[in-house]
Amino acid sequence: MNILVTGSSGFAGRHLTKYLQVKGHTALIPEIDLLNATETEVVISKQKFDAVVHLAAMAEVGTSMISPAKILRNNIFAQLNLLEALRRRNSKARVLIICSADEYGGSQEGSIDENAQFMPASPYAVSKIAQDFLGLQYFLSYGLNIIRLRPFNHIGEGQRIGFVVPDFVKQIVEIEKSGQSGEIIVGNLEAVRDFTDVLDMVSAYELALIKGQAGEVYNVGSGKGVKISYLLNQLVKMSKAKIKITVDESRFRPGEPSQLICNSEKFMKATGWKPEIPLEKTLERVLEWWRKTR
Amino acid sequence: MNILVTGSSGFAGRHLTKYLQVKGHTALIPEIDLLNATETEVVISKQKFDAVVHLAAMAEVGTSMISPAKILRNNIFAQLNLLEALRRRNSKARVLIICSADEYGGSQEGSIDENAQFMPASPYAVSKIAQDFLGLQYFLSYGLNIIRLRPFNHIGEGQRIGFVVPDFVKQIVEIEKSGQSGEIIVGNLEAVRDFTDVLDMVSAYELALIKGQAGEVYNVGSGKGVKISYLLNQLVKMSKAKIKITVDESRFRPGEPSQLICNSEKFMKATGWKPEIPLEKTLERVLEWWRKTR
Repeated sequence: MNILVTGSSGFAGRHLTKYLQVKGHTALIPEIDLLNATETEVVISKQKFDAVVHLAAMAEVGTSMISPAKILRNNIFAQLNLLEALRRRNSKARVLIICSADEYGGSQEGSIDENAQFMPASPYAVSKIAQDFLGLQYFLSYGLNIIRLRPFNHIGEGQRIGFVVPDFVKQIVEIEKSGQSGEIIVGNLEAVRDFTDVLDMVSAYELALIKGQAGEVYNVGSGKGVKISYLLNQLVKMSKAKIKITVDESRFRPGEPSQLICNSEKFMKATGWKPEIPLEKTLERVLEWWRKTR
Repeated sequence: MNILVTGSSGFAGRHLTKYLQVKGHTALIPEIDLLNATETEVVISKQKFDAVVHLAAMAEVGTSMISPAKILRNNIFAQLNLLEALRRRNSKARVLIICSADEYGGSQEGSIDENAQFMPASPYAVSKIAQDFLGLQYFLSYGLNIIRLRPFNHIGEGQRIGFVVPDFVKQIVEIEKSGQSGEIIVGNLEAVRDFTDVLDMVSAYELALIKGQAGEVYNVGSGKGVKISYLLNQLVKMSKAKIKITVDESRFRPGEPSQLICNSEKFMKATGWKPEIPLEKTLERVLEWWRKTR
């Protein structure tokens, strides 16, 4: 397939474009300012593609608390302009809208399926709810061939500071490089999250394009709850440095969900997807990557 | 209570401000451009109020299909600026966010409670989903004293053309004034909707302010499904004019819900609200109002 990828320079985007090429697809990565409706329509009209993966979005939860208007505007209108361009050319292309587990927030005790309540804890989460239902509306109103995914946390090489794993790994590698002992400052270690290797995640995106059903929404995640403290301890164990851990409560976010565990049965049943890379392998790879690139 | 009302010049807003005065409250109706964040913060900071009813929003479903960006921008950012102004002054005021039954779309056969799926059939509906969860997020993240209502259709004097009752009544009154016989052009007569008198609806808003629980969302509607054809036939019967009805399929909206019936048990239980005005009385009053004002 010829697959147009927006947000191809982001964390998941870079892994996805590589993976699509490995699987024999062609990833098209046009330069578009998606916030410019006219430019988006012109650029899209010149491309030939069978599918679109819409990854372009701001994902910084913390920043979204400080500048809510910016993230809402960016995430909603980038997608609106893309969908309008597709609608106007009567596109039959399969479109994958990447939403987020943050829509659910800390809505419940057990694992979260697609019918769980939304309890958004940030303007980022609200922007993702808006993207989600804008996608559904363009399916319902115009029959666009849209599938929505709600991925849970995913981790790997190239993820930006501001997310938990790179925040930890960066500090550990700095300690390693500057003398083998030091202190790392962390936020809430009690939160439980569901981590999937970004390589497993992008394979889910490709399967969704091929086997997902138009109009449907699917949760994607490992199904395993991991305490942030476990993740930190694993990373500290993988390092020879002597590391002191200090919890900084100012890094806690108000209303932050205590637990987010994915139920992705619907997606696994629809596509046969299964996450394959164990968390510890991913953490080792990420630590190694930071040691090499920093 | 001193109650700040946004959108006080709109259909429900005018009825609400009158009703609040009758009930002994003071309705504050400051001039604010809610799309201007700074102006909103300055004006809000000068007011003293115990509660806010946020009604200001574009509500034209049809227009939203043609200019989706406009309605999304208006409805989301007007509310964001209002909530940010309240958050910055640490407001304890009760805030009523007016959402919409359109969020559900035609999601199910029976009556719709608060847990029904969202099936938005217009960008208007998507903008209301965004308002809804932005309200929830400001409750969850900052403890703002927010209640959300999802009102189903409401009708009464002063509703604008573009909604079904004024569209019918305007044409009937025009026929009455221009010779007692003529044709009226209508859209989908098979759709089933839940109509509440706007006077019953604004009494629900006042009760929500007093008795609603912060963080909760409530559906508000009569609980009775009415076919649009029944509504039209009632109006035609109330007129002495000879009226021919012509269905214009170009007035059907793609993906329009076939049925929207409210389950407002949660709201009735929380507040004791009950709609009291029969549909036929409301239709007579609206017809009479149009005859006098046109």
